[in-house]
Amino acid sequence: MSRKEISVLEDLLGSNKKIAAETRRLLEDRRILAINLMSSPGSGKTSLIEKIIEALHPQHRLAVIEGDIETELDAARIRAKGVAAWQITTGGACHLEARMIARVIGAIPAETEFLFIENVGNLVCPASYDLGENLRWVLLSVTEGEDKPKKYPKAFLTSQSLIITKIDLLSHLNFDLERVKREAKEINPNLSILATSAKTGEGISAVIQFLLNQRQKLLSRHA
Amino acid sequence: MSRKEISVLEDLLGSNKKIAAETRRLLEDRRILAINLMSSPGSGKTSLIEKIIEALHPQHRLAVIEGDIETELDAARIRAKGVAAWQITTGGACHLEARMIARVIGAIPAETEFLFIENVGNLVCPASYDLGENLRWVLLSVTEGEDKPKKYPKAFLTSQSLIITKIDLLSHLNFDLERVKREAKEINPNLSILATSAKTGEGISAVIQFLLNQRQKLLSRHA
Repeated sequence: MSRKEISVLEDLLGSNKKIAAETRRLLEDRRILAINLMSSPGSGKTSLIEKIIEALHPQHRLAVIEGDIETELDAARIRAKGVAAWQITTGGACHLEARMIARVIGAIPAETEFLFIENVGNLVCPASYDLGENLRWVLLSVTEGEDKPKKYPKAFLTSQSLIITKIDLLSHLNFDLERVKREAKEINPNLSILATSAKTGEGISAVIQFLLNQRQKLLSRHA
Repeated sequence: MSRKEISVLEDLLGSNKKIAAETRRLLEDRRILAINLMSSPGSGKTSLIEKIIEALHPQHRLAVIEGDIETELDAARIRAKGVAAWQITTGGACHLEARMIARVIGAIPAETEFLFIENVGNLVCPASYDLGENLRWVLLSVTEGEDKPKKYPKAFLTSQSLIITKIDLLSHLNFDLERVKREAKEINPNLSILATSAKTGEGISAVIQFLLNQRQKLLSRHA
């Protein structure tokens, strides 16, 4: 990259960081737990959110922001479950940015407890953009192969949790679950790892328990 | 984007196009058929190349360029099959660029017939960068869902072929093969579509026949 290109990129990331910090403060003030979900296309981000909605809605107040390059398909899936969803279409851009979230955040109802932000399907670029979330999750489906943490380290390095998806397919694949857990931990020793199937429901209750605990922690910080 | 950001991006893409055109001329002169493979992480690009190697090597001369953010894992897989492979690690960048290919191209043996360029696993950014290839293939595994052509149109719009992968898993999934073919054709009516399984070998012979035909066409253009 030329010096000019590097300086433009630094400006972009610097201003993104500032906007993300404001969003994080705002969400904390309102006691909203915000989760940024990142993964390859088709790893099951929307399906996981649907399962969480089935478990938590309507006892808990949820909201969803859907990031896509094109189409409102994912927001429509969420609304069909009775939960408010905001679609951000980036029109070509390969990731969400803090300013896109900041524009939507004012519309999120005050009593919201959990805000899920589904990033553009891309295991690379979203990892560089803080959106102001409290938690960052990287999803990896068992059909993608075990080598992904080593090949796409930034997504795993910047996330608090790795959610392994589609484990119902394990018996049809040569996927070494223990290897992927071990190699993900080598990149990020603090990563909490949960294995799930949106199809059979396996592992979903652990995800729900994790979310409830995290929201409780957020409330305690402000008690 | 600011005017400054847009101008930097235009400079980048303009210079990429120029370098790609030179590479294309060079490859044509040397009668090398170059295929740029794009897909999400884990759709099976390396596995497809391995199956092609099994069918064509050593009767035909093959070479492979592997693009990854980190690691030499994929080049090692290719070399284990007895084919020369060059690894480009982009060190964070989410796509290959023409200048990266141009630096390697001089090292490709003169008698090479087929050059496979495996792009970084990313269904978004690689679509914007011409590498100087003759053919662009987008891969989509049946585990990723049928909505991907609509959600990531540029990769499908700029490719000549869609290779659907992992069809051995179809019986375990709710994946509508006809729907994905139809919606991909809506985006790009000229797309040729091949369905494959690297595991069972289904559909691989059609890929091989397609490659041999395309190389024959390249030779005829220069007869």
